[in-house]
Amino acid sequence: MRGLGTRTVLYQQNVAASLGLYNNDLKSVDILRETGPITAGELSKLTGLATGSVTALIDRLEKVGYVRRQSDPNDRRRVILVPEYEYKEEVGNTYRPLHQSMIELASSYSEDELELINHFIGKASGILEEQIRQLNASRSKSSS
Amino acid sequence: MRGLGTRTVLYQQNVAASLGLYNNDLKSVDILRETGPITAGELSKLTGLATGSVTALIDRLEKVGYVRRQSDPNDRRRVILVPEYEYKEEVGNTYRPLHQSMIELASSYSEDELELINHFIGKASGILEEQIRQLNASRSKSSS
Repeated sequence: MRGLGTRTVLYQQNVAASLGLYNNDLKSVDILRETGPITAGELSKLTGLATGSVTALIDRLEKVGYVRRQSDPNDRRRVILVPEYEYKEEVGNTYRPLHQSMIELASSYSEDELELINHFIGKASGILEEQIRQLNASRSKSSS
Repeated sequence: MRGLGTRTVLYQQNVAASLGLYNNDLKSVDILRETGPITAGELSKLTGLATGSVTALIDRLEKVGYVRRQSDPNDRRRVILVPEYEYKEEVGNTYRPLHQSMIELASSYSEDELELINHFIGKASGILEEQIRQLNASRSKSSS
């Protein structure tokens, strides 16, 4: 599991470099893809990045067309970030070989086995989410 | 799988911040832990970081006692990097809650199920490793 973790981090770093993005920028784009449109403040909370860093990051991502600022249709005073990332051809091209290999790997398992694996991955994701929250909480406590 | 990937990257970033390390520094320490003693050149290849960056990184890690430079007992002209990381109490303390939760999660599965999950994780790690190699290769081709 730890080996998979190290490789995931390295893979992400290499994808960012291949796309000419900063590592944090790619992470934020990935989070946006998962959450859907959110505000800059919410992104700052989810990434643990300071508000000023997030503003600069959104400027960079908007410039290359990975993200769009838009006023919230439900509340015109709020500005939300809309991911435009999935439509970029170079992003699809960069991730495609990984997706294909993963699909091949998955196809070597039965339905029941895949369900078990999926369940495990979901649980492991939940654990990591909780750990991120706790690390964040203990950092903000020690810095106050 | 992609959700797990994003959370792994964020978790690692939060661990680095909690330990007061740069993100790249923690990654290198994790790689060293896996490979055992290697040279700075080998670490540069494995991380995709430039030689100069790796030198500065090792200086920082040696200063905080996470890594030690030592001449290779098999070839005195070679300098190898020895990880000292596992012995640091703060590192153990930072990872401990994750380890405990993962052990708890694992204990909810049978031996056979764990074997299946382990096999999948091993395969997925191998795929990521191959992808990292390919991304690296296509970057060095396009920059030459």
